[in-house]
Amino acid sequence: VFSESVSDHVIRQVCLSSGDTAYRFFTLMLPLLCFCHRYDLLSLYFLLQSCPATQPSMLNVHLVPHTHDDVGWLKTVDQYYYGDRNDIQHAGVQYILDSVLEQLLADPTRRFIYVETAFFFRWWRQQDSATRKAVTMLVNEGRLEFVNGGWCMSDEATTHYSAVIDQMTLGLRFLNDTFGACGRPRVAWHIDPFGHAREHASMFAQMGYDGFFFGRLDYQDKARRIRDKDMEMVWRASESLTPPTADLFTGVLPNGYNPPAGFCWDQSCNDPPIRDDPNLEDYNVDNVAKMYRTNHIIMTMGSDFQYENANLWYKNMDKLIRYVNAKQSQGSKVNVLYSTPSCYLQGLHQANLTWSVKMDDFFPYADGPHDFWTGYFTSRPALKRYERLSNSLLQVCNQLEVLGGPNSRKGPYGEGDSDTLQEAMSVAQHHDAVSGTEKQHVANDYAKRLARGWAHCETLVSNALATLSSWEAPREYCLSLNISVCPATENSYKFFLTVYNPLSRMVSWPVRLPVNGSDYMVLQPHGQVLDSQVSLIMAASSIMVSHCYAIKRSVRIFVSSLLKGTQEVGFQPGYNASDGNSADSNQPSGAYIFRPNSSTPIIVSQTAKTYTLKNSVVQEVQQEFSPWVSQVVRLYWGSRELELEWTVGPIPVEDSLGKEVITRLDTNINSSGYFYTDSNGREMLERRKDFRPTWDLKQSEPVAGNYYPINSRIYIKDKVNQLTAVTDRSQGASSLQDGSLEIMLHRRLLYDDVRGVGEPLSEPGDDNKGLVVRGRLLLALTPPKDAADIHRPLAEALVLEPLLAFQTGEAHIVAFHFPFQFSGLQASLPPAVHLLTLSQWDQESVLLRLEHQFQVTESPTNSQPVTVNLKKLFSTLEVVGVSEMNLSANQWKDEMNRFDWKTSGGIVTFSTGNTNEKGIFGMCQSCLHKCEVF
Amino acid sequence: VFSESVSDHVIRQVCLSSGDTAYRFFTLMLPLLCFCHRYDLLSLYFLLQSCPATQPSMLNVHLVPHTHDDVGWLKTVDQYYYGDRNDIQHAGVQYILDSVLEQLLADPTRRFIYVETAFFFRWWRQQDSATRKAVTMLVNEGRLEFVNGGWCMSDEATTHYSAVIDQMTLGLRFLNDTFGACGRPRVAWHIDPFGHAREHASMFAQMGYDGFFFGRLDYQDKARRIRDKDMEMVWRASESLTPPTADLFTGVLPNGYNPPAGFCWDQSCNDPPIRDDPNLEDYNVDNVAKMYRTNHIIMTMGSDFQYENANLWYKNMDKLIRYVNAKQSQGSKVNVLYSTPSCYLQGLHQANLTWSVKMDDFFPYADGPHDFWTGYFTSRPALKRYERLSNSLLQVCNQLEVLGGPNSRKGPYGEGDSDTLQEAMSVAQHHDAVSGTEKQHVANDYAKRLARGWAHCETLVSNALATLSSWEAPREYCLSLNISVCPATENSYKFFLTVYNPLSRMVSWPVRLPVNGSDYMVLQPHGQVLDSQVSLIMAASSIMVSHCYAIKRSVRIFVSSLLKGTQEVGFQPGYNASDGNSADSNQPSGAYIFRPNSSTPIIVSQTAKTYTLKNSVVQEVQQEFSPWVSQVVRLYWGSRELELEWTVGPIPVEDSLGKEVITRLDTNINSSGYFYTDSNGREMLERRKDFRPTWDLKQSEPVAGNYYPINSRIYIKDKVNQLTAVTDRSQGASSLQDGSLEIMLHRRLLYDDVRGVGEPLSEPGDDNKGLVVRGRLLLALTPPKDAADIHRPLAEALVLEPLLAFQTGEAHIVAFHFPFQFSGLQASLPPAVHLLTLSQWDQESVLLRLEHQFQVTESPTNSQPVTVNLKKLFSTLEVVGVSEMNLSANQWKDEMNRFDWKTSGGIVTFSTGNTNEKGIFGMCQSCLHKCEVF
Repeated sequence: VFSESVSDHVIRQVCLSSGDTAYRFFTLMLPLLCFCHRYDLLSLYFLLQSCPATQPSMLNVHLVPHTHDDVGWLKTVDQYYYGDRNDIQHAGVQYILDSVLEQLLADPTRRFIYVETAFFFRWWRQQDSATRKAVTMLVNEGRLEFVNGGWCMSDEATTHYSAVIDQMTLGLRFLNDTFGACGRPRVAWHIDPFGHAREHASMFAQMGYDGFFFGRLDYQDKARRIRDKDMEMVWRASESLTPPTADLFTGVLPNGYNPPAGFCWDQSCNDPPIRDDPNLEDYNVDNVAKMYRTNHIIMTMGSDFQYENANLWYKNMDKLIRYVNAKQSQGSKVNVLYSTPSCYLQGLHQANLTWSVKMDDFFPYADGPHDFWTGYFTSRPALKRYERLSNSLLQVCNQLEVLGGPNSRKGPYGEGDSDTLQEAMSVAQHHDAVSGTEKQHVANDYAKRLARGWAHCETLVSNALATLSSWEAPREYCLSLNISVCPATENSYKFFLTVYNPLSRMVSWPVRLPVNGSDYMVLQPHGQVLDSQVSLIMAASSIMVSHCYAIKRSVRIFVSSLLKGTQEVGFQPGYNASDGNSADSNQPSGAYIFRPNSSTPIIVSQTAKTYTLKNSVVQEVQQEFSPWVSQVVRLYWGSRELELEWTVGPIPVEDSLGKEVITRLDTNINSSGYFYTDSNGREMLERRKDFRPTWDLKQSEPVAGNYYPINSRIYIKDKVNQLTAVTDRSQGASSLQDGSLEIMLHRRLLYDDVRGVGEPLSEPGDDNKGLVVRGRLLLALTPPKDAADIHRPLAEALVLEPLLAFQTGEAHIVAFHFPFQFSGLQASLPPAVHLLTLSQWDQESVLLRLEHQFQVTESPTNSQPVTVNLKKLFSTLEVVGVSEMNLSANQWKDEMNRFDWKTSGGIVTFSTGNTNEKGIFGMCQSCLHKCEVF
Repeated sequence: VFSESVSDHVIRQVCLSSGDTAYRFFTLMLPLLCFCHRYDLLSLYFLLQSCPATQPSMLNVHLVPHTHDDVGWLKTVDQYYYGDRNDIQHAGVQYILDSVLEQLLADPTRRFIYVETAFFFRWWRQQDSATRKAVTMLVNEGRLEFVNGGWCMSDEATTHYSAVIDQMTLGLRFLNDTFGACGRPRVAWHIDPFGHAREHASMFAQMGYDGFFFGRLDYQDKARRIRDKDMEMVWRASESLTPPTADLFTGVLPNGYNPPAGFCWDQSCNDPPIRDDPNLEDYNVDNVAKMYRTNHIIMTMGSDFQYENANLWYKNMDKLIRYVNAKQSQGSKVNVLYSTPSCYLQGLHQANLTWSVKMDDFFPYADGPHDFWTGYFTSRPALKRYERLSNSLLQVCNQLEVLGGPNSRKGPYGEGDSDTLQEAMSVAQHHDAVSGTEKQHVANDYAKRLARGWAHCETLVSNALATLSSWEAPREYCLSLNISVCPATENSYKFFLTVYNPLSRMVSWPVRLPVNGSDYMVLQPHGQVLDSQVSLIMAASSIMVSHCYAIKRSVRIFVSSLLKGTQEVGFQPGYNASDGNSADSNQPSGAYIFRPNSSTPIIVSQTAKTYTLKNSVVQEVQQEFSPWVSQVVRLYWGSRELELEWTVGPIPVEDSLGKEVITRLDTNINSSGYFYTDSNGREMLERRKDFRPTWDLKQSEPVAGNYYPINSRIYIKDKVNQLTAVTDRSQGASSLQDGSLEIMLHRRLLYDDVRGVGEPLSEPGDDNKGLVVRGRLLLALTPPKDAADIHRPLAEALVLEPLLAFQTGEAHIVAFHFPFQFSGLQASLPPAVHLLTLSQWDQESVLLRLEHQFQVTESPTNSQPVTVNLKKLFSTLEVVGVSEMNLSANQWKDEMNRFDWKTSGGIVTFSTGNTNEKGIFGMCQSCLHKCEVF
């Protein structure tokens, strides 16, 4: 039996000269055959857009007609598109776009913004050429403006930056291919996500956005900002990148994303229409103007799935504008106009004020003293894991599509593609998808889409592997290895395993397979025997395949710490969820909200049944705390990190109490109230219990109010030790006691939390008895200065894990004759360099993203700048040229032309030479083909 | 004090030669100055319409996109138009018309019908010329077709033919003026009214409609018609008119007026949209086809206030048509097409079948065994009376506008008009207006509209009277005389009273006025003293002014019968309404439905306090049965009819029982289960207890199931006597025992009857304690052969009652010097001829409707044809020509060109020479100006 691996990478460091600091992304377009002229990302369209005139001496009220179209929530994305299941929620996006188009064409002063490319793309495909032409005209004239423009409006708490960049790229690419530069969104628009991640702002800045608007932030934060007229600011979104690279002008919208009370004219609203005798006294714009600093205010005229019948909106807004502005002749100083976020932003920019600087993030989000939206950090842990695993597969699929060439799409296994999984993954980034805040049937649909994507990718991967190995025997993939199910290995005494490692360096990865026998030999490609063990563990036979490394320090400490925890406080404590009956508030825990009924967790069990195993590959302690909580503590020989494989569920609710299960790690680390969590899996942010950096927190939920999202890791430290927990999915976590870390693993609740989803979060599982979830935590205890050198590659390997492909039957003879090993790279990349993206862009070019993955000061060695020789990167592909793009690959890097903003720390000019005179509203530049030919 | 009267009419009978039988309407256009060329009622538009091609060998499914827009119901007509108060019901007609227009323009195969001109008129006024041009094109091409086309879709049970003709004329005139012949509706469309009156069908026939479709009929009747394939028929709607004058092809729609289940794609529906993979197996058109006789079936694709976002409908219907018709290539015999009722009717006509003949009507309507919609015959009795009184004022107003000339509209009292009241009255004819089935706030709005119309008419009347009398002293009108309130008479010792009689003959009319003194003298124009009496009656002083006639027989019988009733069974019995808790059904009484909880009425009181009065004018017995039921039995000297003035309310409901108050008249007449009720106040129909003429009735509600609407009268008879009760408003009535008549006067209920109005019918009255209602019944006991000679003029005088105008102050000196008497007619018309309409059409012409008001056999003398000399009709106007029109005045009479239909009684050809070859779908004829100049 062969293990085909990519372990013979050779590290070569050469040539790509970069003056950038650490932690940068490099998004590169590699014209493999140098057909540069094909890359007309910037088109020849001229942007005829001129923002509507404003009145310098008046208060300008920018009406921004918009719709917020969730890419799935109460209904599936298909149901939303078609307007199916309107009994659940009245919403049909196809009609929204139909209707808005008609209304925009009816009056050139009207404007509209559109956000979610997942829907727009779909609609566009169904339009005839006349309609497309009309839409293109509207886009070119700025009457229809795309904002945000990703495939979806991603969640910010539970998404990984890798998938966010991909989904943004997918959406923005469609806009760029379809409309050219005039279709490029200038404004990021996250009006609904439930808290805002600094890494999102950093990404948006690096994608070239000029500004960012959102609706939800902590109610205390908002009150403070209103009081201080600090609703708009510059967000300095990275501590690693030199300003203004990650600076993003950020505005809090006055009214969430809804219209002012009484001014909602959608079919879904009941506000009175404007009649012939207008009574417009009800709403005083001055109240809003008081919160903001310039003589511009923005009003979001729309909401969820509105504008299905746009005539209702526009007909009444037309009247509003007419009647209010008519009062100017009687001395009114209010000027109402149709506008867009970009035009509003232009007004702010022209005001030339100095803005405050925001350095932290907007987590956690609370909309009331007992209403912390920190439950969704963990909601639907199985979906969250499946999404993360799907991202890994997608990267494998993308890479093999490049390495396997055209045969990978159409080969011996049929037609495969990466697009299906890419779209499913992009949908899954939506803030009601991986967030876990959708209805159950919608969660099922997201999973189904991913599964369909997997199937398409598996065909592609099989084709690619067949091409690379010249071996076309059937390949199988085992998706249920986490529950020890794999027909290919269970039913065969001999099988072939191909391991594809998507990282740009060698990795040690344990392989555990269910087998139907007790004596197996594992052979490497050239016949070397690999150490393996067969053991009977929890009813499933497993074979371990492991590269061996020397064990170093620390391991025992963890084990003992954990066992100590088990014996003293119970290892898997959990919170009982509030049912809403308390004196303070009737808010229960739900899909969004975490609200335990006590600050002290309940102990599942003071004792555990334990089983131990120790062989040449691994040593394990299996712990069963209760029929629904168990854990395997595992240490592989050669690995320095402890693995905790937890299994939770079905969570019992017969006692009529919802439960939120946490794992708590208690140590002697003197953490002094501080802990550190990642932002979208990338840069780490400092957290402090019962504290917010930018306002005087009045803490009202001592547990939920201290929860933060973790996408990849959390740590506590003192001067001597740092305990880092690396997770396999997004979760909620905190440190409520010094030396203690807790991570919420699973939740099952009995009440809806009244934020719209209308269901208690109680996942049924396959048998309707409640979902069982299994996952892993990797723990590392290190000195703080070495920690990043450990947890960065650890997290990287957990995010992009090897793909296993199985072959059975007599084809092994072939395998013996043609031992197969292949590396797509000529050499491993330096530890600081993460191969984030390698995907086929079109027939002649490849999109490559390299990432410096170490934060600025976290590693004495790895945080330093590094260089990579692109020309010598690939083993089988000739790179004949390279053009650097913005992060989302919809603009040439050297044409990025963002607004400069004066900040309280002084003006920082973009290195590309931006000035205030340059702006987003000049003429579109024609396409200048970028191709740096080697 | 003067009484100005029109009592000097001279009867002259001359010249208008008519070969018609009795009971005809004559709608005449009188060009007073013979500017015939102005009457371009038929325009020069050519009707380009061709109905969509059908497939002779297939089942043709006519999809008829339509909206049903109530002219008030849960919301007021304004709220419906603007889309205000969408919290009550989502509905905004302005948007419907906006949206449908866009969708029709987008695809020439699409069609739409529009019904309610009250809404269309309003919308049209707000459109720019480009929009109007586009709409006109759609109308000319048959893509937008008007059906019905009256101002509203009138109620059929509680409306008087006079007001129905007026409202139809108002709506159809707008369409004719705006679109010419191509805008003339060919089909009457009463899809929602709760039962169907034969007189409505008769009117529609005389208005030139080719067919009539409706949705609601008794569930047993419908079942029988489905079984017998008798859903479509010819309704012979008058026993007086020679067929086919009042014949009307009538069709019962298959699904009420809704789309088939699963095919509702409106924004208000939740049916799944058609997606790319259509599943169209759900609905089997054959089930519908089985009910009908031709290879055409009609599907009403729409419902209440639908098409506000027409794109949803059309987009899915486009797909339905495409996908279903695509199956024809695989042998399907189903052909789906966009169509209209006219095109469907054309298909039926071309089938050239012989149709059954319907002679009776469609009352009462039941949609279940315990669900008789017979409560609304009486619901809101005060509104019903106000509507009837407003009709009288409107006719006065119309007449005086003609007689007073241009000064009446703009004169010494300011600007007045009849249009406001005409529109308010036309709105009030709606099947949720005078029917009493609207919400309370909407009922208030109808009343407010009428009141506004009154004010405009009062100004016009004052101007006209000033012009005719050359006397401009202020005039006042006392609208509360029924409760003895009139400031003009109460606060003045001297006042002038002008009495205008709108009938075409002399009438005897008692005038009762509240005065503040005990000794009054009433003087006629030339100084003659008129007999009058001042009496203290029920706390209000009244002065009686009465012309005296000899009293003949019968009176005592009635009084004794009534008093006998009082003593024996209580005079004002009532039913307790079902609260819905019964074994048979949970249907309660409500605004629509009458369902007493017992067939035996409760007696209000066995005894009454009585007061008697007898003087030279009147003799009265005042009866107080309870604090909330009283009655005055009154006989004027010189009158042969007994007046019962009843006062009912506030109906007590403290016992948690709704109540429906009836008055019952018990006699010894041997009526044998038969009784007779009017149809819309005109022709009488025979009724029989527990019997329907066209199907074998299974009676399940012995009281409610025998109730019928009466608009003007009900009678029972035997060979000797006929007891006729003439009412002052529409009511529900029956004869449940031989010799007995009962009339429901007032209702107050505690439950909603679940037919949509969503309120219990419990009118609050001014003080929120419950509405008090007062009304009158006039009773005549005659031999049957003389009865019509009595009840026809009696009812006529109750429908069109004299207008009283008061003047106070010193102007009486002028009055003494210029005694004023005026008659607009040169002479009274014959008793058979009712002056139905005299109104200004435009500056140079007048619309005149004369009506033969005797049914074919009811009077030996008065049922005979009569002739009237039009040229010598008016005393002050010169009639220089005349053109006869159809009943609704939107077509020249001799151009009426209706479909002929073969009936089971043989084909009857229209006298104007219609043939089957002629049809409604030929080219529009150009305008031929009609003007028969004398």
